[in-house]
Amino acid sequence: MSQYRAPLDDIRFDLFDVLKVESVLADLGQTDVNRELIDAVLEEGARFTTQVLAPLNAIGDQGCTFDKASGDVTTPPGFSAAYAQFVEGGWPGLNAPVDFGGQGMPQVLGAAMKEMIDAANLAWGNFPLLSHGATEALLHHGNEWQQDVFLKPLVEGRWTGTMCLTEPHAGTDLGLLRTRAVPNNDDSYAITGTKIFITAGEHDMAENILHLVLAKLPDAPAGSRGISLFMVPKFKVGKDGAMGERNAVRCGALEHKMGIHGSATCVMNFDGAEGWLVGEPHKGLMAMFTMMNTARLAVGLQGLGLADRAYQNALAYARERLQMRALSGPKFPEKPADPIIVHPDVRRMLLTQKALVEGGRLLAYHAFLNVDIAHHGADEAARHDADALVGFLTPIVKACLTEWGNECTYHALQCFGGHGYIAEHGMEQLARDARITTLYEGTTGIQALDLVGRKLLQLKGEGMRVFLTEVKAFCAAEANNSALAEFMPELTAKLDEWQALSMRIAKDAMANPDEIGGAAWDYLFHSGYVALAYWWARSVAAAEASSRSQAFKDAKRETARFYFARLLPRTLAHKAAIESGVGNLTALDVAAFD
Amino acid sequence: MSQYRAPLDDIRFDLFDVLKVESVLADLGQTDVNRELIDAVLEEGARFTTQVLAPLNAIGDQGCTFDKASGDVTTPPGFSAAYAQFVEGGWPGLNAPVDFGGQGMPQVLGAAMKEMIDAANLAWGNFPLLSHGATEALLHHGNEWQQDVFLKPLVEGRWTGTMCLTEPHAGTDLGLLRTRAVPNNDDSYAITGTKIFITAGEHDMAENILHLVLAKLPDAPAGSRGISLFMVPKFKVGKDGAMGERNAVRCGALEHKMGIHGSATCVMNFDGAEGWLVGEPHKGLMAMFTMMNTARLAVGLQGLGLADRAYQNALAYARERLQMRALSGPKFPEKPADPIIVHPDVRRMLLTQKALVEGGRLLAYHAFLNVDIAHHGADEAARHDADALVGFLTPIVKACLTEWGNECTYHALQCFGGHGYIAEHGMEQLARDARITTLYEGTTGIQALDLVGRKLLQLKGEGMRVFLTEVKAFCAAEANNSALAEFMPELTAKLDEWQALSMRIAKDAMANPDEIGGAAWDYLFHSGYVALAYWWARSVAAAEASSRSQAFKDAKRETARFYFARLLPRTLAHKAAIESGVGNLTALDVAAFD
Repeated sequence: MSQYRAPLDDIRFDLFDVLKVESVLADLGQTDVNRELIDAVLEEGARFTTQVLAPLNAIGDQGCTFDKASGDVTTPPGFSAAYAQFVEGGWPGLNAPVDFGGQGMPQVLGAAMKEMIDAANLAWGNFPLLSHGATEALLHHGNEWQQDVFLKPLVEGRWTGTMCLTEPHAGTDLGLLRTRAVPNNDDSYAITGTKIFITAGEHDMAENILHLVLAKLPDAPAGSRGISLFMVPKFKVGKDGAMGERNAVRCGALEHKMGIHGSATCVMNFDGAEGWLVGEPHKGLMAMFTMMNTARLAVGLQGLGLADRAYQNALAYARERLQMRALSGPKFPEKPADPIIVHPDVRRMLLTQKALVEGGRLLAYHAFLNVDIAHHGADEAARHDADALVGFLTPIVKACLTEWGNECTYHALQCFGGHGYIAEHGMEQLARDARITTLYEGTTGIQALDLVGRKLLQLKGEGMRVFLTEVKAFCAAEANNSALAEFMPELTAKLDEWQALSMRIAKDAMANPDEIGGAAWDYLFHSGYVALAYWWARSVAAAEASSRSQAFKDAKRETARFYFARLLPRTLAHKAAIESGVGNLTALDVAAFD
Repeated sequence: MSQYRAPLDDIRFDLFDVLKVESVLADLGQTDVNRELIDAVLEEGARFTTQVLAPLNAIGDQGCTFDKASGDVTTPPGFSAAYAQFVEGGWPGLNAPVDFGGQGMPQVLGAAMKEMIDAANLAWGNFPLLSHGATEALLHHGNEWQQDVFLKPLVEGRWTGTMCLTEPHAGTDLGLLRTRAVPNNDDSYAITGTKIFITAGEHDMAENILHLVLAKLPDAPAGSRGISLFMVPKFKVGKDGAMGERNAVRCGALEHKMGIHGSATCVMNFDGAEGWLVGEPHKGLMAMFTMMNTARLAVGLQGLGLADRAYQNALAYARERLQMRALSGPKFPEKPADPIIVHPDVRRMLLTQKALVEGGRLLAYHAFLNVDIAHHGADEAARHDADALVGFLTPIVKACLTEWGNECTYHALQCFGGHGYIAEHGMEQLARDARITTLYEGTTGIQALDLVGRKLLQLKGEGMRVFLTEVKAFCAAEANNSALAEFMPELTAKLDEWQALSMRIAKDAMANPDEIGGAAWDYLFHSGYVALAYWWARSVAAAEASSRSQAFKDAKRETARFYFARLLPRTLAHKAAIESGVGNLTALDVAAFD
């Protein structure tokens, strides 16, 4: 069984030493969210996730059970009790508005908690996850009754939420969906259709489940402009908020998946279920994106959490497992063999994980901190810039952190050799669980298209400019920092390269829109690696400027060196691929692929 | 459920048009193995693997069952009957010597058959797999009785073999093993110990199982120089070959694995079991390597087979799945959406698979063809060179094809979006099955060390020189081939770069042996990508020179262009990592990794 230790030391370094959240939050008017409070939340979060959730991770892999007759889903042993503790601790409303019973804590703190939840038990974490999206959708688009009656139980965690988008023939392309909403005699609608891949669509943890459902009104225009958003509770809810009879929505089956077996992935059948329109008719896709963007950043944290847990276990194993001697001579001559961490290739795998986890953590937390700034920034310009930055960073955080999550769990499993492949050590579960993260809430390819097609081109790279301004300010401020002298030339060269590639793609796309698709994936990773170079340089600077131990400073510097020497050069391959143009992708006839 | 179609057209292209096996085999004296015969074997092999094995792949995923009381293992429904057909068809002895009941067919033909078996049903393929290794070990190291009595039933497939190496604390480092062999009063030994991860250690397919077991004699020197090889049959076998009572070897448990559930991975307990020494005392490791080298090339084929099956299914899905429109405008306006194969990023994933599968197939077949030359070459020099070449190519074939197998199954699953993650389409099984291939028979890191430490440095790059001679002869012969003009400059530049890196590593390793471990993994992939560039150039040349259709020639050329433009540049990252030296891997203190 894999172990998990909450990485509080590195989280604190990121929050306080690198991102300076205390002063940023004070500038946002959140002076009460001081270091003491943040520390207390982190400590309690670490206790809950490591002591309550982490031990349930392996048993969760045995899966949920489905009763076909009743349509009921039973979660793995311990899951429901852990959720009750989660609710008891007030965690569901950590980031929710105080007006609706939440604690109004900053998103960046919620991100740290979310990372720990996902590392401890990704499948469990999916049950409360979508409640945040439902809360966001109602906050932004719900009417007074919807907010008054539904938000409080969602925020308290007594009810949970879902996002019902996908249908068998309509995943990425929601314009194709067939679920129908027909007006009833009152202001409700009858929702009919089948949704698949519905996370937490049915379970035994909460009193009620609020489904946020995309469907088409009878007069809907064709395509994605004809989609409306509805809310459909599992148990009907009266105007006074009283829960009534069971609604006509049932789970039809659980999917058999590669991993996250403890997460109930449901086929949901709506059979004239009572629902209410959320927001404007035919504007459902925009409302759904309100939920989706939060969820995308959250899925990035899933990749991060799994990568960190995998790394922790691979590291422990590499220190314990005795096998062969170092090529440069025995390092532990008193033992029958050296621990495998003496072997450079094992260190390569470990350092790859360490560099991606710690760098990725800053990449993610920085995005969440900007969600806070976008909400609470002192002036319109600050909020606008932060919002643009979040929009730009969201596909990078989602796609890179989940792809790196897969890479890290792959390396971690590999460190265990054959022992990584058997269930006993828990490494293969982490790898299987990680595999979903590049798929749901928009595949990596979709994130790449969002980054290039929308954020870089359609929005004219506004968010990128905000990011570059920040990075260049850092480079200017640290120009004479001798600790950074070895990193700065490469960082600035990569920034230039990145900008040049951005302009090249914009130019090529004008001549041929397919160039966007041809460059998107490689550009996404190029962006991610350049961003991580920035975060590693900032980590070195922040460590040096801190009162941390020399060992801590050394570790950050050596990991940064590894990153610049052995991971950042991956940009060379991505650059070459981008520069080769889309022609080598489109030339082959569809019939000639066999 | 995933489908499988035997890629006979590409196999024939490789064998007849690229590798010219007819003339090579004729030069080896195997004039009877002509195109007609090879075609007949391929056709029958395709029939067996696609019609008998492939349909059992999904059901095999449900796993073997173990009876604790009896120690018996029952294979998945249909597995045993399929094995009976395999034996009936004479397949187990396809490459075995005619003297012992085999068919004496060339290894390169066996490779094609093995690829199809693994693509059709990897877990099933593991049952006959180790019999080849046992056969090789007895052929090279067995005494007359061992060969007379044991080889024939192994070759016929009535008995199967195992390789019992690993113990809980001793995997890569076999010098640590504890299994003991104590001489009995006759010429037999009593073998006692526990072996783990024993593929096909117990099952219901064959009359008897011959375990090839590494153990230590009472007077054994410490470490790997004190290991001897023993054969231990499940049922005792008399001097006359008659099967007797059950031997004291039993399966103690089946491992719960990430994949290849249909393959029985056993804990084997030897409790004073009757065994016989194979070869010289204390020389067991060398004898075991005879088995291991064959097995390593075979595992490379497993990666290839899985990658091909994954690709076939991803391609079919990409042609069928309608989702969104091409950015450059609808390509199938009559349909509600375009098939996803119109999207450049989907094509990127498909072409990556196609390029790695078709290029990797040549890389593998070429190695197997040189096994044939090493055995049957006309003169000592030819045999010696081919043997050195096989030694050099073995870690590249094993490691690259299995890592690419993981990459291809990853991309293929990704092409399915969320549908790739559920069991229904069979893609997640291919990904789980592929994950074992980089672990067993020596991890990727071990292959990399074998390539650099032994093949490049200890053996002074002899095999590499043979390979380079062949490649340079090709480049010289095709210097004026206009079809290759676009590829030649990059191919020759990469060959130079590869040689320069080889010399650099050799030089650095003299100063610090740890440089071997620091460079090995990146050098291995650099080698693999350069080798594939050669095979893609040769594929273009061979296609152009053939009487194949223009569509076939176009497909090879466009895939080669994709490979040179978008995959070969990965060498840039590997080169940078190698040139950065081992220092960035060794600097961090063991305690500072947290």
